[in-house]
Amino acid sequence: MKIDVFNHVLPAGYLERMHGFAPADVLKGFASVRTLIDIDARLRMLEPFDDYQQVLSLSLPAIEEFAGPDDSPELARLANDGLAAFCKAHPDRFIGFIASMPMNNPAAALVEIDRAMGELGACGIQVLANVNGRPLDEPEFYPIFERMAELNRPIWLHPTRPPSHADYAGEDRSYYEIWWALGWAYETSAAMARLVFSGVMEKLPDLKIICHHWGAYIPHAEGRMMPLWQEGIANSAEDTGSGPKWDNLARPLTEYFKMFYGDTALFGGRAASQCGLDFFGAGHSLFATDCPYDTMDGALNIRRTIEVIDSLRCSDEDRRMIYETNLRSMIGQA
Amino acid sequence: MKIDVFNHVLPAGYLERMHGFAPADVLKGFASVRTLIDIDARLRMLEPFDDYQQVLSLSLPAIEEFAGPDDSPELARLANDGLAAFCKAHPDRFIGFIASMPMNNPAAALVEIDRAMGELGACGIQVLANVNGRPLDEPEFYPIFERMAELNRPIWLHPTRPPSHADYAGEDRSYYEIWWALGWAYETSAAMARLVFSGVMEKLPDLKIICHHWGAYIPHAEGRMMPLWQEGIANSAEDTGSGPKWDNLARPLTEYFKMFYGDTALFGGRAASQCGLDFFGAGHSLFATDCPYDTMDGALNIRRTIEVIDSLRCSDEDRRMIYETNLRSMIGQA
Repeated sequence: MKIDVFNHVLPAGYLERMHGFAPADVLKGFASVRTLIDIDARLRMLEPFDDYQQVLSLSLPAIEEFAGPDDSPELARLANDGLAAFCKAHPDRFIGFIASMPMNNPAAALVEIDRAMGELGACGIQVLANVNGRPLDEPEFYPIFERMAELNRPIWLHPTRPPSHADYAGEDRSYYEIWWALGWAYETSAAMARLVFSGVMEKLPDLKIICHHWGAYIPHAEGRMMPLWQEGIANSAEDTGSGPKWDNLARPLTEYFKMFYGDTALFGGRAASQCGLDFFGAGHSLFATDCPYDTMDGALNIRRTIEVIDSLRCSDEDRRMIYETNLRSMIGQA
Repeated sequence: MKIDVFNHVLPAGYLERMHGFAPADVLKGFASVRTLIDIDARLRMLEPFDDYQQVLSLSLPAIEEFAGPDDSPELARLANDGLAAFCKAHPDRFIGFIASMPMNNPAAALVEIDRAMGELGACGIQVLANVNGRPLDEPEFYPIFERMAELNRPIWLHPTRPPSHADYAGEDRSYYEIWWALGWAYETSAAMARLVFSGVMEKLPDLKIICHHWGAYIPHAEGRMMPLWQEGIANSAEDTGSGPKWDNLARPLTEYFKMFYGDTALFGGRAASQCGLDFFGAGHSLFATDCPYDTMDGALNIRRTIEVIDSLRCSDEDRRMIYETNLRSMIGQA
């Protein structure tokens, strides 16, 4: 069995409710991706794939991007009810779902975590790399990480716009495309760094965070962590003299970064996939395709990702972990 | 022989002249790195390394960051004269140098290219990922790329601050550290993308560009290029409807990105190094350590980088190309 742990849908009830909040052009864009908004179309697209299941999650935009803190809890409930209903109706294809949270209302998020993980049986929660520009290491978000560690269920970390995205709005199209293709993973990487530097990963050793796109640029930064990042930038001409926050961390930085999990959603990029596997190890790597965002309604990236995983330098047991057993362990099905 | 193709120094005459332009705290920072400003200290640090040579280049900041277009040509001449003098005095250790250009004065840069490549015998030129925030695909810079292609000598592409660096100035220290460690390679990647999308790589098939940090994040983006990046983001909810500029490129995007060369300066990051090699190939990979920016005046990264290269999955012939023969071919010493 291959379990695709990170791919996206939009339940109809939630999508309908979005019309009161999200801009019309955003909603119009969704209509062009049938397998995103029409679960029967999704099931038909998946027909050729035997021994293949999906864990469902919401598509961007995040709820907090278009709904204020008074409305986001209701939208999260609607979304999670819709995701749960898909899994209940098609358990053979949809093994579970990742709940979305009203992250601009952390108190309500804590309530929704317990409802979604309890009553609805969610596998974990989805969190974006920043909350409308606010970094994840702000103290207000800590109880969310703490609760997920207590529940021993994973957080799926998804990229999003950078805090300064507004700056790009007036730029020419090629700049937007560059940001879109390269900037996503930057934001994921920055979020991971913040969770390490702020001590969240140290304080919550049982916390499991699955980072989209095989841990983004963190493997590329490995050499900068030790000793350069670890010791600050004492040699840099731009050193401000103030010590970096993470002086107090007990262990080498690389160890905290290797606590994260990466998913395989690299769209057929083979060199980067081997890099993700080499850095995080098979025990911290999970199969995902980012379905349905490709030119074949999702089928292309499912095929390309499987091809790449099957070609990686690793053992068959490693591949079993990536495809299936890591996820089952993380959600208590082992 | 191992030829380290990207590492940095600051000739005394140039450094002295900088005092009239660059901020005092920047200059004070340099004073703490002896092997950057004192060529005898550099030579002593290198003593333990047998069969090892360096191609010298200027350290940041770029000339155009602190000197206006009227002054930058003089500073470039001073810098290049100083670099050439080091090579003339110590040819066994310093096999050549990369000339710096007054990039904010492209007409003067063309004159300096011919002087440095001719009279001074430079190996190539160093260009930063943007020129004070101006992207490299602005038409004014095209003659510089064109001239280097005519001369059949490489451009070394070095990261720099992003256009919006000023936004980070007021941020807390941890954010600056994150940008410093992750943002460099983003800017290199964005610059590479612009050179591809604007058609520079297509128009100048003989152009050779060596990209710092093994091609930065481009290998990670490989899967996004085909077909997603290639075809624009037709499926995205944010598609503006205007076609991307690179619709007119004749070949698949990945082919243009594989025209670049990467250097090995990843500070001991093994997974990312294998990734760079797998993506660019041994024929487009060159040994570099980014000396002297580590906690041992450069010696640490020389050792770590050699250790990693010697451990990569490749042939001994591949390693000879990376360490020596690629560079010799590129500078006409083959």
